Amino acid sequence: MPDPVIIGTVALDSIETPFGKVKDALGGSATYASLAASFFSKPGILSVIGKDFPKEDIAFLNKRGIDTAGISLGDKTFRWQGFYEFDMNEAKTLRTELNALEFYKVSVPEHYKDAKYIFLANIDPELQLEAINRIKNPELIVMDTMNFWIEHKKKQLLKTIKKADILVLNDSEARQLFETPNLVKAANKALKMVSKAVIIKKGEHGALLFTGKKHFSAPGYPLENIKDPTGCGDTFGGALIGYIAKTKDADEKNLRKAIVYGSILASYNAEGFGPERLKSVSHGDIEKRYNEFREMREF
Amino acid sequence: MPDPVIIGTVALDSIETPFGKVKDALGGSATYASLAASFFSKPGILSVIGKDFPKEDIAFLNKRGIDTAGISLGDKTFRWQGFYEFDMNEAKTLRTELNALEFYKVSVPEHYKDAKYIFLANIDPELQLEAINRIKNPELIVMDTMNFWIEHKKKQLLKTIKKADILVLNDSEARQLFETPNLVKAANKALKMVSKAVIIKKGEHGALLFTGKKHFSAPGYPLENIKDPTGCGDTFGGALIGYIAKTKDADEKNLRKAIVYGSILASYNAEGFGPERLKSVSHGDIEKRYNEFREMREF
Repeated sequence: MPDPVIIGTVALDSIETPFGKVKDALGGSATYASLAASFFSKPGILSVIGKDFPKEDIAFLNKRGIDTAGISLGDKTFRWQGFYEFDMNEAKTLRTELNALEFYKVSVPEHYKDAKYIFLANIDPELQLEAINRIKNPELIVMDTMNFWIEHKKKQLLKTIKKADILVLNDSEARQLFETPNLVKAANKALKMVSKAVIIKKGEHGALLFTGKKHFSAPGYPLENIKDPTGCGDTFGGALIGYIAKTKDADEKNLRKAIVYGSILASYNAEGFGPERLKSVSHGDIEKRYNEFREMREF
Repeated sequence: MPDPVIIGTVALDSIETPFGKVKDALGGSATYASLAASFFSKPGILSVIGKDFPKEDIAFLNKRGIDTAGISLGDKTFRWQGFYEFDMNEAKTLRTELNALEFYKVSVPEHYKDAKYIFLANIDPELQLEAINRIKNPELIVMDTMNFWIEHKKKQLLKTIKKADILVLNDSEARQLFETPNLVKAANKALKMVSKAVIIKKGEHGALLFTGKKHFSAPGYPLENIKDPTGCGDTFGGALIGYIAKTKDADEKNLRKAIVYGSILASYNAEGFGPERLKSVSHGDIEKRYNEFREMREF
């Protein structure tokens, strides 16, 4: 049985940054999230691809212990084309081809249904809700989203958020969704909708955890050479749910560790194009950076 | 003998934020910095005011143990009028009256000249350099600056930076001055110019310390109610130099503590208009928040 179950997109990305470019690279929120989760546990993907999707990419995911039985087959794979300017802060979209994603109906394999941990990676909130409803008795639902759904499907998004235990979103999305420039106020509003915690990702500035009682601030890793930030948010969320699924512990104290692992995997991901760097990261690399995280916040 | 010696502006500020306003309030970089430093040591100010400057403000500074013998008397006090919009990120200047500051010549009282610690708060870099030259044998020079000098006096600014041991600047200034969006790269460039360290202030996101070998990331304090961020950067620098002067220790390990004290005083300062909140902060308040800083970065 795969655990966590991750619903999100599997895509072919064409990306250009000031440091290079890549065409039709393996991408999508579920891809990055499951790759990151695979360092800690055995995730299963819920998504859709087309007949054009490279067989070797599926083989690669399987080799990483990722269950792909929950990936439906449609006509053509979802494609995204985008670029980053010199400051690397924000992806600019050139083209989005929904393709098979437009007609995707969530179909959950029987052996997924007893999973205890769910990660709702970035995808239509109605599909996220569908996934929740098909898992029998989940212990923890972690949900990510993005500005597109805040702008175009806010009502459905809020409905799904109310089913989540932990909401993960980035700082600009938190300000936008909860209509306040103050992140503490945004977090307090979010905490009224979810059962457990809110995690705000701040890119190079790290991440914040709010549980209502406690506050945790994870530093950002000081990266000198960022090649491509695509998928860093998904990688963060995937490592987080992967670590929680491995330790079977979603208490505040363990969430802090999960956030640090999320930050570490995301920092590695930014060092290569697409998920390239994630392919070569070792457990030793992860532990090395974990110690650096400890050291750099000591006083 | 006052130590640290702080050169900067003493001003009358008129400020408006979405949460209130204040007219002709005690302000200026040397004011905020010396008030913050006074929690740890006995600072002396180098600056200029006019005949219109309220006597009770001088009396207040003296009562806090701040030496004002180095404040020259000109015709009219420097005035700044500005406002903040809802996101409170950036001060918008409505009016700047240099007044006496335009004709200020640095004049250093004899009993200041043996001071060991100097803080060059935000003021014309030529005046900062003047101050350095008049102190006999300083042990540590910490320098702050702002975008205005980067834009208008870059050459003189770089000349002064080369005399500093520690450069303190905010993230947008670091990117601007060193012409890179990457803060690690900016810090590495800065480290080639100063003898000891670079500290990058990131507002709500905390502060970073770079020494070439080590990296420290101080979290931001999660403030729900920011009333007026005026002077937070100066407060940060003042508490930093005050704590270093008290402990007579500028090693990397102690710099981390100094940065946390800087962050704490700055976080309190943002809770009131002008330096109002700094007037009521107690040592107990400072230690309380110090423990919160420890707790919120633990994992």
